[in-house]
Amino acid sequence: MTATLAERILAGDPRAIARAISLIEDEDASGADLVRAIFGHTGRAYLIGVTRPPGAGKSTLVDRLITNLKKPQRSQSSQRSETKELSAVSAVSPVFSFSSIGVIAVDPTSPFSGGAVLGDRLRMQTHASDAGVFIRSMATRGHLGGLARATGDAALVLDAAGKDIVIIETVGVGQDEVDIIRTADVSIVTLVPGTGDEVQALKAGIMEIADIFVVNKADREGAERLVSAVESNLALHAYGTEEWRPPIVKTVATTGQGIPELVETIARFRAHSQGTQALRRKTRSEYRLRELVSQRFMDHLERNVLAKGELAAIVDRIATREVDPYSAANELLRRALK
Amino acid sequence: MTATLAERILAGDPRAIARAISLIEDEDASGADLVRAIFGHTGRAYLIGVTRPPGAGKSTLVDRLITNLKKPQRSQSSQRSETKELSAVSAVSPVFSFSSIGVIAVDPTSPFSGGAVLGDRLRMQTHASDAGVFIRSMATRGHLGGLARATGDAALVLDAAGKDIVIIETVGVGQDEVDIIRTADVSIVTLVPGTGDEVQALKAGIMEIADIFVVNKADREGAERLVSAVESNLALHAYGTEEWRPPIVKTVATTGQGIPELVETIARFRAHSQGTQALRRKTRSEYRLRELVSQRFMDHLERNVLAKGELAAIVDRIATREVDPYSAANELLRRALK
Repeated sequence: MTATLAERILAGDPRAIARAISLIEDEDASGADLVRAIFGHTGRAYLIGVTRPPGAGKSTLVDRLITNLKKPQRSQSSQRSETKELSAVSAVSPVFSFSSIGVIAVDPTSPFSGGAVLGDRLRMQTHASDAGVFIRSMATRGHLGGLARATGDAALVLDAAGKDIVIIETVGVGQDEVDIIRTADVSIVTLVPGTGDEVQALKAGIMEIADIFVVNKADREGAERLVSAVESNLALHAYGTEEWRPPIVKTVATTGQGIPELVETIARFRAHSQGTQALRRKTRSEYRLRELVSQRFMDHLERNVLAKGELAAIVDRIATREVDPYSAANELLRRALK
Repeated sequence: MTATLAERILAGDPRAIARAISLIEDEDASGADLVRAIFGHTGRAYLIGVTRPPGAGKSTLVDRLITNLKKPQRSQSSQRSETKELSAVSAVSPVFSFSSIGVIAVDPTSPFSGGAVLGDRLRMQTHASDAGVFIRSMATRGHLGGLARATGDAALVLDAAGKDIVIIETVGVGQDEVDIIRTADVSIVTLVPGTGDEVQALKAGIMEIADIFVVNKADREGAERLVSAVESNLALHAYGTEEWRPPIVKTVATTGQGIPELVETIARFRAHSQGTQALRRKTRSEYRLRELVSQRFMDHLERNVLAKGELAAIVDRIATREVDPYSAANELLRRALK
């Protein structure tokens, strides 16, 4: 059955894709088998990660991005370019050539579990004329690191299904989102004026993961202040002449303003990072491997080494301070490896 | 040396506490040894976890909380109580009796690493007359789950040092913050009007961890709307008659309004949760144990099972699609356990 599902995925069948992502989201063992079956057919899609500030602009930005990615375009230059780099970009023609897009909308705080939620259906209607667009929401299972892994696996499914571009959209910029966005080939951090982002924009975690900054709702008061805040922080880094300096693209997703510039900036980053993309994907593979090994070892420990209820008894002894967690961990390791 | 440090911590020496937290933050092996040495002397402090929205109200709320916790008080009832529960609370006298407070201010996105940052010194001046107040910032090391573990260990140090109350303050409500706040005996989620919290407040992750909601800057426009949004969401849950229904406390930290009510609400939660606190601490212990075991197994694998550079070679083969991560993980496990 899994073999058939894998075949159907490779043929690009949307129902098979949806079914596969459900298996992955449920952390079903057949989900892992499926990833093993399709893995050799992945690595071709370009992964675009986009963070979305809580409560900011819904998914309008990504919807606009899909629309703009799908048509050949030139910058309308209707927006005054903020930096010299952006002016230069406007003259470059987009390099994306593709036929289909997959979108995974991740909300680590959403109570919706699995399946296409109402929002997906509404969004798919927007792109109804585009048979190549597949949109799917994923929610957290409360499992440590589980969401980043599930997102990565879902991206593999879309990749194997022949999607040329996979957009991973996630809410917020906590550790979870950083992990998710790190799985992408390009990481786009979206900020919105007047939401405290001026402060948050200066924090290290975000500065480190962003390849491109988007200041959305750029027609709002405080947009220039937010751009300046990001600029001043970028100024603290000494970027080499060959090094990518994250540009700031101003957008108004509701009107589409700035979206062509964003598409061009993504294309420019892709061209610039051709040499480093392999390294980035390697880092991603290592992270993934480490996480899987840890998880499987814990499963082994509970199933094959410890008696039923033994882990609970050890936990009790830690809770009552009879043993400390470090000593308990060492003892468990000793037993598993003897 | 560690033994001496442990002795000095048990004697409540602030310099020893600071040194110990630095060791823990650096993920130094002696930090683990230290926790083992003091662990038997922990479990007495009451842990209060407080989330702080990004860019919202700095640490004023926690500073006010410290001040109010330290003085015997009654509700001034200057604030119109929002719910019947709150009116009832106002008549209850606080049950906290203690002599010293420790504060760990966690900022997962902060670039500041270790040591008392300027902010700590400024905050400590505010509480200068209170010899019993110890404040310390902690920043992320970028290590998966590392910050939650380090925060938990730092709380153990303050606990062993005789702090009766340990406040763990963290920015945001991502997975990292959820993990951090879960290590506390009471989890307080702070929301602020006009920051998109109206939307975020309705998301499951937050609803699940909050024992008490604080709507800070309650004098701002939109405060009532935010309270209503949380209320409507709470209404979706069918709380049993004996079950704790998270109250919403409105505060204006800058003026101190609502802080006495917050202290009383914390006291009321503590009294209510006496029966379940042990279970909560057990869950915390299990989480901690699992994380430690996983980490140590990976260390063992790299040091004792794999040849130098072998992990990198396996990662390369995953990156080039020669092997899938699930098969690679299984093979690594087989070799480690043979």
